[in-house]
Formats: sequence, structure tokens, C-alpha cells
Amino acid sequence: MTSPDAVVIGVDFGTLSGRALVVRVSDGAELGTAVQEYRHAVMDSTLTAHQGEPLPPDWALQLPADYVDVLKNAVPAALEAAGVSADQVIGIGTDFTACTMVPTTADGTPLNELPTFADRPHAYAKLWKHHAAQGQADRINALAHSRGEAWINRYGGFISSEWEFAKGLQILEEDPEVYAAIDHWVETADWIVWQLTGRYVRNACTAGYKGIYQDGAYPSKDFLAALNPGFEGFVEDKLDHEIGQLGDRAGALSAEAAAWTGLPEGIAVAVGNVDAHVTAPAADAVESGQMVAIMGTSTCHVMNADVLAEVPGMCGVVDGGILAGAWGYEAGQSGVGDIFAWYVQNQVPGAYAEEAASRGLSLHELLTEKAETQPVGAHGLVALDWHSGNRSVLVDHELSGLIVGLTLSTRPEDVYRALVEATAFGTRTIIEAFDASGVPVRELVVAGGLLKNRFLMQLYSDITKLPISTITSDQGPALGSAIHAAVAAGTYPDVRSAAPVMGGRVVEAYTPDPAAAKAYDALFAEYRALHDHFGRGGDDIMRRLKRIRREAHAAQGAGSTATDADVAVSAQTQEARA
Amino acid sequence: MTSPDAVVIGVDFGTLSGRALVVRVSDGAELGTAVQEYRHAVMDSTLTAHQGEPLPPDWALQLPADYVDVLKNAVPAALEAAGVSADQVIGIGTDFTACTMVPTTADGTPLNELPTFADRPHAYAKLWKHHAAQGQADRINALAHSRGEAWINRYGGFISSEWEFAKGLQILEEDPEVYAAIDHWVETADWIVWQLTGRYVRNACTAGYKGIYQDGAYPSKDFLAALNPGFEGFVEDKLDHEIGQLGDRAGALSAEAAAWTGLPEGIAVAVGNVDAHVTAPAADAVESGQMVAIMGTSTCHVMNADVLAEVPGMCGVVDGGILAGAWGYEAGQSGVGDIFAWYVQNQVPGAYAEEAASRGLSLHELLTEKAETQPVGAHGLVALDWHSGNRSVLVDHELSGLIVGLTLSTRPEDVYRALVEATAFGTRTIIEAFDASGVPVRELVVAGGLLKNRFLMQLYSDITKLPISTITSDQGPALGSAIHAAVAAGTYPDVRSAAPVMGGRVVEAYTPDPAAAKAYDALFAEYRALHDHFGRGGDDIMRRLKRIRREAHAAQGAGSTATDADVAVSAQTQEARA
Repeated sequence: MTSPDAVVIGVDFGTLSGRALVVRVSDGAELGTAVQEYRHAVMDSTLTAHQGEPLPPDWALQLPADYVDVLKNAVPAALEAAGVSADQVIGIGTDFTACTMVPTTADGTPLNELPTFADRPHAYAKLWKHHAAQGQADRINALAHSRGEAWINRYGGFISSEWEFAKGLQILEEDPEVYAAIDHWVETADWIVWQLTGRYVRNACTAGYKGIYQDGAYPSKDFLAALNPGFEGFVEDKLDHEIGQLGDRAGALSAEAAAWTGLPEGIAVAVGNVDAHVTAPAADAVESGQMVAIMGTSTCHVMNADVLAEVPGMCGVVDGGILAGAWGYEAGQSGVGDIFAWYVQNQVPGAYAEEAASRGLSLHELLTEKAETQPVGAHGLVALDWHSGNRSVLVDHELSGLIVGLTLSTRPEDVYRALVEATAFGTRTIIEAFDASGVPVRELVVAGGLLKNRFLMQLYSDITKLPISTITSDQGPALGSAIHAAVAAGTYPDVRSAAPVMGGRVVEAYTPDPAAAKAYDALFAEYRALHDHFGRGGDDIMRRLKRIRREAHAAQGAGSTATDADVAVSAQTQEARA
Repeated sequence: MTSPDAVVIGVDFGTLSGRALVVRVSDGAELGTAVQEYRHAVMDSTLTAHQGEPLPPDWALQLPADYVDVLKNAVPAALEAAGVSADQVIGIGTDFTACTMVPTTADGTPLNELPTFADRPHAYAKLWKHHAAQGQADRINALAHSRGEAWINRYGGFISSEWEFAKGLQILEEDPEVYAAIDHWVETADWIVWQLTGRYVRNACTAGYKGIYQDGAYPSKDFLAALNPGFEGFVEDKLDHEIGQLGDRAGALSAEAAAWTGLPEGIAVAVGNVDAHVTAPAADAVESGQMVAIMGTSTCHVMNADVLAEVPGMCGVVDGGILAGAWGYEAGQSGVGDIFAWYVQNQVPGAYAEEAASRGLSLHELLTEKAETQPVGAHGLVALDWHSGNRSVLVDHELSGLIVGLTLSTRPEDVYRALVEATAFGTRTIIEAFDASGVPVRELVVAGGLLKNRFLMQLYSDITKLPISTITSDQGPALGSAIHAAVAAGTYPDVRSAAPVMGGRVVEAYTPDPAAAKAYDALFAEYRALHDHFGRGGDDIMRRLKRIRREAHAAQGAGSTATDADVAVSAQTQEARA
């Protein structure tokens, strides 16, 4: 019997910082929290961890040691903020960005920590949004389809450049020495658990969604050899490892990790997990048809179902990928809040900034206020929300943003609203793909920073024609990790039982307005036509423009202008998460 | 023999103001100038001349009395600025915006000056950019093609909603009482000459380009009756009138006009003319193959040729339309400088405004500076420059602006440059249509405010692959009108003789850079593909979005948001002209 004072700690590792949250096991009450920024943030223009060497376009690296600093600083700070004693802590759970990958030695040491490799970019952790392996991803997809590999349809027909195989193949082909030195190619979600326990367990979630682990097997040696003869042993040598189910106990907190965190040695450490997936129980939304949308910089959609289906353009379907015993579906939109942030930073005039400042509003709030009173369609615009490519349902990072309908009467708030609508149309496109594949969505459950924007929420309900529920907690991922810690510690038999006690949501916080929903249908029809024309080969202009752009920068001999802007985007990311 | 002290006065009536220029007849020296703003500017949201009644979307009216104020104020002020005596003035010439139409009584009184009609919007002058007669223009075009009217191909296959017939038909169908009261439906270019001389003469330029007067005839009664039975007598009753050739003497300055202007009664008054067309002799560019582009808010292209050809999408070809005895071709781009002005006002962040202010630059200069060092194609963008529709070669005001290739790295100067490029691609599209129709363009002669932007000029040369010459005078239209005054006064036998003496240009101020020209070819190919897809029926989304927008505003019961923005555009127009 767990003590009524017992608490667990959930740690959420995001793109720019990690957050620790102290949660009471008996009712999910959040008692205290603390954040630790990563000292090296995202290295996407220069290798700031080593003499600032320039990085090519589309790279995004991180320093694993920065993650350990979260354990050392945020965990004790959260405990102190909660005013609870370390003795009350019975378990710790973690979640991470998915397919952020670290190359390690046999004992888990990141290769960048070996002096030999400190100056080699490929020895560092590759953040999820490292997009420089698109060529490799394209080849994986083409080969999988040409060979009729069954697993490719578990991923909507497309493997992303962000995932384990594409990133691994890039290392082999660009820095074979680093590749040869890799003993384990590890999801950071599992690497951090390894640091806590001294034991390497691959979590079922990322192994399935990002590691192409399906029905107990990875892609075959044959397949790997056909990609590149040197890649034949990739799975056997660097990837394959014991799998742990979500909510399982990965091990006990090691003495070293106890010293870092101030927590009792030996308490339960949960199997690693992913920020989006762990949010579903935090919102008490783990049943079939409850699609959880974590809306921030980007949007990730996760949903459980009893049935296995192949949804075109989904990110993946994985047995036990969200909840042990259910088929977990994942889809995503590459750009959402970061598109709004880009727009506000780059395309909104000073007069608006002055008005916002004088009225104590953010620019987002001001633009929303100006946009929300418009009748549907009054701005005359339709946009494609592909400023950072399209994840679902097209899975193509060479796509780009488009807007049509601009006139000399178009105002800043018009374009802002069109961008918001475009992201909602993108969500509807995903939902329709699920519905059409026999995995119907009946409720949209929203978590993440954007749920604070009531106009946006209502717009999403009108456009998707679904009721929208909103997560109660402000710290969904950290709470979700805490729930998994409580299960790993044995307080609850499983995550499904813990979710309604420790998690929660405001049911049907928004419902569709029938008149608005009808009016949006006309705009959505335009969005879908553009979506299919530019996204499905009617016109490949977006790919050609990206190629022209790369060639122009290459001819100039530097990608400096592009990467400066990318840094600015990273700064915005934090704002959108906040 | 003309006295060496003899001067003429050219008066250029623009969209928001009129300018008088005193010019020495012997050498074209510009001795003094003065501007008079129109007191009521453009009435496009409310009828400010009468109790501020709201106007529907797409309307644009003016008050004829404001034009007379230019004669009363700017002419004497210019004389004073020039320091010349009124006795030295031997003639006056005028030019106007084209197809700005005023409905008058038999003696030329504008109907709005009759108390009965002061509250009737249709009784006022309709500015060229009154776009509310698109429905009528569509019907005229459809009927002309279905009947195989030969004249339609003299206008590139399309009559514009801006022209005399569409605007006239709109009055008949929306306010038959005003229509019935019209004795003359007069181009303001001719109305102002009527005010100066007391005599109504239709100039060959607007009669041909805007009045569908071809080979000595207007559209037939049959045709007009088929449009609307009540329209059958339109030409006979309200339009047909004596035609005067450009450079001819329309009459003598009347006593009344002499009193207004302080000029000697009886001096020569030239036949009316149009701002763009009159600029060709001011730039000494009246020979075949010299395309004069007047680049400001919009761009108008005029060119003479010895041959008659039917260029698809041109605005028109008129015998003596620019120069008596030559075939005058006209084409146009609806939006150029006003697109840049819209962008700067609506889509450029405050940080840029602050930088520009601190460095004493305009925002246009700052954006140009940031954009001009990019390699061609480095921004990865292509835009369609249709923010106020497309005049040539598509003749469709239902089209709208588009931009594709946006990413989170796209900066304000990237979009700015893409918009500049789009307008140059639009110019190239027009030039290629002329070349393909047997009317080759060999030199681009630029007049208008945008010629001051050296980056833009070089870019136009690179994209069109043509040498660019630039007009010497800062007051092209007014100088052109003065040249016509000198011819009307008998100093020169014709405009062709006067042009090299009084006008002038910097020959080949810019020549194409071969490497840049080649690089732009790839972007132009993308522009043309989008142009044809969205402009020629591949996807009619732009038309549908305009319809949705109108319906949304109509459902709300007011076009107030749209018209507020239009007012802002009018304000920008002035800046772009300045």
C-alpha cells in the first residue's frame, strides 16, 4: 500500500529545456516544478560545443551532457519547490523528443565525449529536427516500395528523414569512422533512462514508431545491404536490444543518479517514453477514437485503437506504442505554432507591435483579436501550412508554405488567420485519413501551449467538426511521465487505471458552430485542392524551388543567411512552448 | 517663328493630384512646376462629397470640380515658380488618367453638380480604378466572342471593367435615371479640354483604347441591344463625337479658362491625352520597338509600330493612339509599386522600420539593400504579382496575389525581392507576347517613380534580357503634354519632330548581366507555369476566393473592412507616385 504522501517525478525533455514535475501519486496533484535550459540549446548553424565550426544547412545537433544537467538541477529544484522530502519519492519517469538520437560506446558514452571525436559533428546527438538525411530517407522509401516491404505501410507509406534509419545511414555515408565507432545508436528517450539506471532498455514506443520495429522484427539484412553494403549490420550491431513496454519498470535508480538528483537510490525508474505519447494518459484520453493533439511549435497526434489499420500518411501504428495492449497511432504536423511565430516575427508591421505594447497584449493576442470578428472567408485567402514541410499525410519536407488570394486590401491579421486556418485544415486532412481508414476519430483532445487561444480552439472545432476537450494540466508531458512512474512503482496496475485518477481533461470545452463549420467547408475544399496539386505531384514547384535555393547558396559558398534565420526560429520555439 | 522665350504648359492629371509644368519650347527646359491635390482625393469607401454615404466595394469616384481647381491653382503657381510672364505662354496641353469617366449634360456640366443628382453615386466621375463593373465587362467579352466581333481582338481579346462601355452599362443597370440624364459620357481627358476651350473634342487615344473606336466605328447598335435593350442607343446618344488627333489643336483658350489660369485668352489648347501615352515623346521613344514602361503604382506599356497585329492580352492597338500615323500598342500591369507599398505597410516588422529610421533610409531602400546581395534564387520563392488583378496578358481583375516557397527561414527582404521579381516576370510575359505576335520589342524605356531604384532596374534588365533606357525628365507626363502643346501651337510640325528636341532619355542605362539572366530563366519558368495554371483555368481558386470574400462581407452587411483598407491603398498610391 502506497503512502498517501507518496510522490513521483516526471521529467519532460523538450527541444530547448527539460522540466521536472513533482506529482502526488494518490490524485495527480502537481506539487512543484522546475526547468533547466540546455546550455547549448540547438546547434544548427555552428558547433558551439566545439570551437563553433559551421554546420551545413538542415542540421540540428545537441549535447547529451545538457540532458544530464536537467537531472542534476531541475529535479532537486522541483522537489524544493514542492516542499516535499526526497524520501517521499517512489519513482521517476521521463519523456523525450522522439528520434533525437545519440551515438554511444558500449557503456553508453556519447561519442562526442571521446576526445577523438569532439570535432566531428556526426558524433553529437542529432535532434529530431535534423533534416539533412532527406536523401537517405528518400532512398529508404523508394527501396521499401520497390521491394514491397510490408512494414512501410505501418508508417503511412513513408519513413521520415528524422528517424533512426535515415539518420544512421547518413552517418555511414558521410563519416564512416564515426559510424564504425558506434556500439549503440540510441534514442535519447532510452539514453536518459540508461543514465538513471545504468541499464539500456529500448522503449516500445520509439522502437516501433522511429525504429521500424514491427511484429517483433526490424528491416532485414537484405534490405539494409541493398541500401548500402556497409549498412547490412546496422540493426544487428547497433540497434537491436531488449524492448521494454510503456509503464514497465526499466530498473532501479543507480547510486550515481541518486547522487545527481538527490533522490533515494533504488526507486523505480520507468521505461523511456515520448513527450507526445505520454500526454495521452495525462489528459485521461487513452480510449479508441480519442485523438490527442499536442499543439505547440508543431502538432503531434496520438490515438489508441483496438484495430490495426494502415492509414496513408500517418507517422506510424505500433503495438503498445502509446498504451501496452492497444494499437497506438501517431500522426503529425511539422509546423504549427512555429509558423505563427515566424509570421509574427517577420511579417507584422511595427504599428501592430506598438498597439499591442500599449494595450499590454502579445502580438499573437492582438492579431487574434483583429482576426476573430471576421466572417469566415472574408479575408479571401487560403494558405498551405508547409513552412517546415509536411509530416502527415504527405511526409515531405521539401514542401513549403504557400498563400493565395492576396490583394492590396489584405491586412496582417488576414494572413495570420489564414495561417491558423491552414493548420486546422491540415488537422482535418489527418482526421479524414483516419476516418477513411477505419479508425474513426470522435473527440479531439488538445494539449500544448496553443490550447490557451480560445479563438484558435473554436476554429479547430468548427473546421474539424469535432468536439474539442482540453487537458487540465499545464504540464501534460511531465504529468504523463509521472503517471508512468507511478505505474512502474506499482501503485497502479496499469496506465489505463492511473489515467483517470492522475490525469484529466475538460470534456467538450468547444463544440462546432454549425454555420461556421459549413462556411469553412468551402475554404477546406480549396485547401484540399491545393494540397493535392502541390503535394501529390500536380506541380513539383516546391521541390524545385528548394533545389534552386540550395544551389544558389552553395554557389555563394555559404549557407550563413539561411542558418542565421534558423537560429531565430529556434528562439521562437521556446516562446511557442512556453 | 516662335520667340526664343516662348513656353508651353503641360498639365498632368493623376489619381490624387494634378501637376502643371512650364517648359521652354526651344529646348524642353523645365522652368517651373506646381502641384494641386484633389480635395476629395479618391472616394472609395464613402461619398465624402455628399454627406459621406457608404459606397459598395470596388467603387472609386472623383469630383470633377477638383480637376478645375488644378487649373485655377497649379497653373498660376507653376508660372510663378518658373519666373516667366503669362505673355510668354503660347499653348497648353493636358493628360489624364485613362477611362476616368464623367457623365455630363449637353453643355458639359457633370451630373453630380445638378442638385437632383448630388446624392447619386452614379452621377460622379468614375475613376479608372472603379472595378465594380466586372460583371458588365464579362458580358461584353462573352457576347463579343460569341458574335465574332472583329474589334475584340484589337484589345487582346478582352474589354476591361475599367473602360467606357462597362462603366456606362453599369449606370444603365443600376441607376437608369442617371443614365437617362447623361447627354455625354466623357473621358475626363476630354472634359478638361472642354473646360479650357468650351469645345468638346474626343481624343483619338482614349476613343480608341477605351471607347472601342476602331476603323472609324464603334460597336454596333445590334451588339449594344443584345447586351441590354436599353443600351442600344449608348453610342449614338452619349458617346459618338468629333475625334481629334494627338498633337492637334482642340481650340483656343476661352475667356473663362483664361481667368482661371491667368493665361492669355486664345492660346492653343492641345487635344486631350493620356498620362502614359504622352510620356513616349517625353522620353524621345516613339519609334517601332521602343517599349515605354511607365512604372509607378502600376505599369503602363506603350509602343508604336508600323504594323497592325493582334497581341493576345494587350490592352489595345489604336491607329494614332500614341502618335498620329503609327499603330499605337498598349499593355499594362495592374499592380507594381502599389504591391511593394502594400507589402512595406502591412508585412514588414517594426525592427526593420527602426533600422531604416536610424540609418535615414526608407523601408524600400532598406529592403532593397538587404535583398540585392542575394544570389538569384536564394530566397526559394516565386510570387504572382496579381494583388490588384492582372491587366496584361490575362485581363482578369478576379485574380489575386500568390506566393510559394515560404519557410521558417524566409525573411522580409526575401518576400520583397520575390515581389519585385514577380513584377519583372509580368513585364517579360508581356514582352514575349509582343515578340510572338510580330511586334518585337528591342528596347525597354522606363519612366515613372520606380526608375530611381537601381537594383530593380538592373533586375528588370536581367529578367527581360533587354537594354533599359531611362527617361531624363522627372515629370514625364507633364513634359509630354507640353510637347503636345508646342505642336498644337505650331512650333513643331508634329510630335515626332518635337520629341528629340524637347524630350530625352539615358540610352542603355542598364544592360542584362548574362549570368543573372540565365539564373532568372529557371525562376521565370516557374512563374509562367503558375501564371498559366492559376490564370488560364487550370485552377480557378482565385475567382472562387473573391466570390467567397464578397459573399462573406455581404452576409455581414457591410464592406467596411475592405473599404478602409482601400483607403489606405489610395494613400500609398501617392507615395509610390512621389
